[in-house]
Order: sequence, then structure tokens, then C-alpha cells
Amino acid sequence: MAITYEHIKTCKQSGARLGRVHTPHGIVETPAFMPVGTQATVKTMSPEELKEMDAHIVLSNTYHLFLRPGHDIVKAAGGLHRFMNWDRPILTDSGGFQVFSLSEMRKISEEGVQFRSHLNGDKLFISPEKSIEIQNALGADIIMAFDECPPYPADHSYAKQSLERTTRWAERCLKAHSQPEEQGLFAIVQGGMYEDLRKQSAAELTSMDFPGYAIGGLSVGEPKHLMFEVLDYTVPLLPFGKPRYLMGVGSPDALIEGAIRGIDMFDCVLPTRIARNGTVMTSSGRLVIRNAKFAEDFGPLDPECSCYTCRNYSRAYVRHLIKADETFGIRLTTYHNLHFLLELMRGVRQAIREDRLLDFRDEFFARYGIDENSKGF
Amino acid sequence: MAITYEHIKTCKQSGARLGRVHTPHGIVETPAFMPVGTQATVKTMSPEELKEMDAHIVLSNTYHLFLRPGHDIVKAAGGLHRFMNWDRPILTDSGGFQVFSLSEMRKISEEGVQFRSHLNGDKLFISPEKSIEIQNALGADIIMAFDECPPYPADHSYAKQSLERTTRWAERCLKAHSQPEEQGLFAIVQGGMYEDLRKQSAAELTSMDFPGYAIGGLSVGEPKHLMFEVLDYTVPLLPFGKPRYLMGVGSPDALIEGAIRGIDMFDCVLPTRIARNGTVMTSSGRLVIRNAKFAEDFGPLDPECSCYTCRNYSRAYVRHLIKADETFGIRLTTYHNLHFLLELMRGVRQAIREDRLLDFRDEFFARYGIDENSKGF
Repeated sequence: MAITYEHIKTCKQSGARLGRVHTPHGIVETPAFMPVGTQATVKTMSPEELKEMDAHIVLSNTYHLFLRPGHDIVKAAGGLHRFMNWDRPILTDSGGFQVFSLSEMRKISEEGVQFRSHLNGDKLFISPEKSIEIQNALGADIIMAFDECPPYPADHSYAKQSLERTTRWAERCLKAHSQPEEQGLFAIVQGGMYEDLRKQSAAELTSMDFPGYAIGGLSVGEPKHLMFEVLDYTVPLLPFGKPRYLMGVGSPDALIEGAIRGIDMFDCVLPTRIARNGTVMTSSGRLVIRNAKFAEDFGPLDPECSCYTCRNYSRAYVRHLIKADETFGIRLTTYHNLHFLLELMRGVRQAIREDRLLDFRDEFFARYGIDENSKGF
Repeated sequence: MAITYEHIKTCKQSGARLGRVHTPHGIVETPAFMPVGTQATVKTMSPEELKEMDAHIVLSNTYHLFLRPGHDIVKAAGGLHRFMNWDRPILTDSGGFQVFSLSEMRKISEEGVQFRSHLNGDKLFISPEKSIEIQNALGADIIMAFDECPPYPADHSYAKQSLERTTRWAERCLKAHSQPEEQGLFAIVQGGMYEDLRKQSAAELTSMDFPGYAIGGLSVGEPKHLMFEVLDYTVPLLPFGKPRYLMGVGSPDALIEGAIRGIDMFDCVLPTRIARNGTVMTSSGRLVIRNAKFAEDFGPLDPECSCYTCRNYSRAYVRHLIKADETFGIRLTTYHNLHFLLELMRGVRQAIREDRLLDFRDEFFARYGIDENSKGF
């Protein structure tokens, strides 16, 4: 098995779990946040910087790499690890989410999805088999089954059809996967916001014994309390001995709430995306660095942060760079935001070790000023 | 004196000189290339990366920092070194060149230059005194006298008037300079492409005993042979015991030819600017990495290069990043190009040590494929 889960302990206060995901390229300590490197690079960052902030794993996108530069080129380069100079674990998504959200004129059939490239309009087709072929070529440690991710809201009958197709596609992915000893294929539980459908999806997929399970179809526009509700009844349906991955979630509150509900892995473009607009996360909430009030603020972005940016640069300097459209500015904010979330997850793991994750959450929320209804942060 | 020049040796073959410029923030080994950090950052690079490639000094632009964030803010931050986290030497230009090339509706008088900001149209005024006030606030090790840089071509009478004003302005700069023990003020020899005027300018300025001299008004559109001709008769007019700085020059051939003519310091945006378009300099000439022929080229940008980019990434990967508009791509090309020119200058200094700079030039030109008439590369 390419991927195994080692359980270390369960937090007595919250039920969250501390563990390790073992991969061909090393260990991921969980609960873990995975920075997103859409196009074989975590935007603005070097691999050395990601290691410096102790990222254990990065995610990359099958859809994007299929379109450009093409999986054949990445394979010829010796695989994605070598292509992007990253020797730690990588996870690739299946391309499903992007096919549905980015491509034009998509046509879904039982066979797969026909669509036009968002780059040049080329007519393309991705089936479960094609997704796995691409992911086998890319060579990530963890690969994802090709799923259909229903929009929010979706009615019961649509969500049911969609999850059943996702199950049939997962079966085809499993069959198409040519190197299970090198790459672990995770299935994705769908079913929208319906408990009976999540049960059905989890039952069908766990019967196929994948090395890991993801929960998809969340963080797609639903209110947060609904997401947590779905997690409440879905996570217990997943096997204890396998990693559990909540897709597309990266706001500080959702990371903590997800961990409390037994999630091991998370990914999201949030920290890197908002960094490019000059928004940073700090221990006392978010901060829009373009704001005029920071023009002569010579303190660090976050006085409690020990990251490269906060050790060496002032809010005034970062603001200047962002306003002057200087690339180094978004390097500094990106570094800080990723470090912030990775540091948060270190805090979460430590709190689990100490059986106090609920206290940790309350303390963090009070300082960060979490707005229950806000999405994103 | 803030700035002193130490002569180490003269190349017996070429007459080029090897030396050291001593500054309050350390030594610059010369001949030296200075990367340009226009807005208090060398575009895309961190200070650590610049140190890694052994940049001894960087240049920053008075005009740009005056407009944004404002020299008062940089001063309040503790000066430019601290603001941008660079503890090695810095040189700031006077703002003159940008006032003439970037600003709108400029009106030159004996008092100074009135202009409108290219950012927001604000009406502004820079005089010699103002330029020095700004540069004193920024706190660079080397600061430049406010000069008038005539365009190319300029007729004899315009060039003469312009150089005479530059002399008067230099005198005012010298008088306005408030901290000569902390910052060395260099004068700029003008005079267009006219030998008598260069003689006049050099005579007037050297009589005022500045700690260093620049040659301005070159690399402004004239053919290269003309620039070399001007250097041939201008450099000998400068005092031997002071640093000599050729402004705005950074093509590999001009760096070598300039060193041969006795120049110690150079600066140019060329390596960083072309990097952002995906053009890189290699030992066998320049290379446009977007080119389709590099799509499956898994070798380094330059097989003879030892830089971070060439040690870790392929042409195919760099091409992918540049085509995908990924910031990390221009980080990699910028790093490579700056390293290339700094490495070239290390080669020039070694060749001077070995009394073989003319041989070095011929070998370099033969491999690089220098086109006598090309400007820029």
C-alpha cells in the first residue's frame, strides 16, 4: 500500500485525532493543511520556502497540468516531484472540480465529461480512466478518484444521481489505477447536504476499500453551520484506519472545526489567494495591508508571528510593495499566510496531544474574531 | 570620508583596474555590477537571494521612492537599509533621469525641475537641494548629484548648456549634502557625445573633489561604438583614486568593454527586465524560454551555470511557469540573469588579476555571439 494511516491519539476533550499519513515521499503529520500548487508551483513560493515553513505536503491540479504543460511532459521530466523540485509528498486532485467550475460547454455523460479548455477553447474529454492516466503520469503520492461535484444547492434527486455516478466512476478509477503500490487512490464521498445520501455514498465507497477517503461537495457556497452538520454525520461513516480529507477548506475556523470532527487533511487556495490582494491572517484577525493606516506602521504583520516576513519586514514596507505592485510584496504576504495556517495546524496537533482542542478553539476564535456567518476567513 | 577607493591592481593586458570601494555598509569589489531595486526591492528577489548570488551593492531610485512611499516614511522606518532589510551597500540615483524620462509636463529651470507624477499627476518639484534632502533621508551609502541628462542626439549647444547646469547643480548638491561622513556624493560627468564638452564637465567637477564620479548620458540610444569612444576619452579625465561609475549599462559586452576602459561600477535594469519576459542570458548567448523548442528540454537554462535555478529546474519547467504566468517563473529567470552578470563580473575581476581581460573578452564574445550593433544584450 502506498498510503497508510498511523493513529497516534484521540483528543479526550474534542474527539479530534492526531496521526501520521505515511507516503512514498515521507510522512504527513495530521491534522494537516496542504498548500495548493495549482500549476506545479505554490504561487510565488519556492520549495525551499515551503520546507522552511514546514509544509509536509502540497496539492497540485490535474486539470491545469493536463491542459498545460501536459501530463506527458511532466512524466517525461521524471514526474511532478522532479519537475517542480519538491521531494516531499504531493496530492493531485482528479480534475473533476475544475472541469465543472472552470471549463466551458461541459457535457456530462456516463462515460465522462466533454468540455472546452478555459485557456484556448480546445475540445477535451476527461473520463475516470483519463483522470487516472493523467494522475499516474504525474506521479503524486496521493491521487483522487474522478467525481462529480454537485453545486449548492442541489436537490435530493440530482445529488443522488450524482453520488451514484461518482461511485461508479470511483470503481472505474480503482480499476484503471496502474500503480497502487506507488500512489494511493482516495475516493470522494458526495451526497450534497443530505444525510441519507452521504450514508449511501460512504457505504458504497468504503466497501471498495480505498486507502483514504475525502469528503467532497462542501465549501461550495453553503453556510458554515451546514458544512459542520454534514461533517458531524459523515466523518463517523469513514473507516477509522484511513486518512480523511476535507476538500477545499482552509479558513482558520473550518480547519479547527474540521479537526474536531475527525478530519486529517485539508487544502485551500484561500491563504495564497488573499495574500495576492494584500490580505493577511494574524493571531488577532485579518488585516488588509493596503489600508492607509499601515503607511507608517513599522511593526510586523503579526507581533506574535515568527515567520520570515514578520521577522524581517514591517507593515509599512509590505504595504509599500503591495501598493507598488512589487512581486516581493506578494511573496511576503503569501509566505506569512501559509506559515500562519501551518502554525495553526501545529497548534491544533499540540492541543490534541494535550487533550484541549476545544479550549484551543475557543481561545483562537476569541482572539481572531471569528464571524460565524463569514465564509472564507 | 564615507566612500574610499582602494586600487588593487591594473590589468597589464587591458588597463582595466581591480579595486575595492569601501562604504559604511561594507566593501564592493570592483569592477562591479549593481542590481537595480527601483522601488526598494530588486524585482521578485529577496535580500537573502541577492546575498546568495553575492551581490555586493544594490541601486534604488530616488524619484520612485520620493513618489511612493515617500522619503519621510523611509526615514521614519530607520532608512532604506532597514526598510528593505538590506545591510550591504546601497546607491541611490538622483531622480534626474526619471524626472526626464518618466514624468509628464516637466519644466526645467535653473532652480530645478517641475513635473507631474507619472502615478497620479501630482505637481512636484525637484531641485538639487530637494534631491539631496530626499537622498539624505533615504540614507544610501552612495548618493548622486542631481543632473540634467540630455537625450540622444543632442546638439553641441544644448549639450553644453546642459552640462554647465549640471555643474552648477553639482555644486549646490555638494553644499546641500548634510552628512558627508555617512554618505558619499558622486558627481555625474555629462557632455553628450562631444569630447570637448566631456573634458569641460570632468574638469569642472573634478575641481570640486567629489568622493566618486559617474559618467552619465550614455546608453541613451546611441550606437555602442560611440559609447565606447566617449569612454575612451572620458575615463582618463577622472581621478585615479576615486570610483568611476558608468550609469545605466548592463549588457554583457558593455560591462566587459567598460571594465577594459577603467570603469568600476555599473547598473542596469536589463537582466531583471528581460527576465520578466522570459529571456535569459547564458554562456552561449541569450535564450527566449517561451520558445516551443524548450517544451521538452529537461536540461538547465545554462549547462555551465551553477545558480539556484540551473541547479534545480529545467528549461521545460521554467518555460511552463512563464507561459502560465506563474510568479515563480520570473523569480527563477531573474535569479539566473542577475547571477549571470555577477558571475561575469567575478570572471572579469579574475581576468584582471591574471592580466588577461582582453583574452577573456574575446573568449566570452565568441561564445555569447555578441552583435556589435545590438543594444541591450
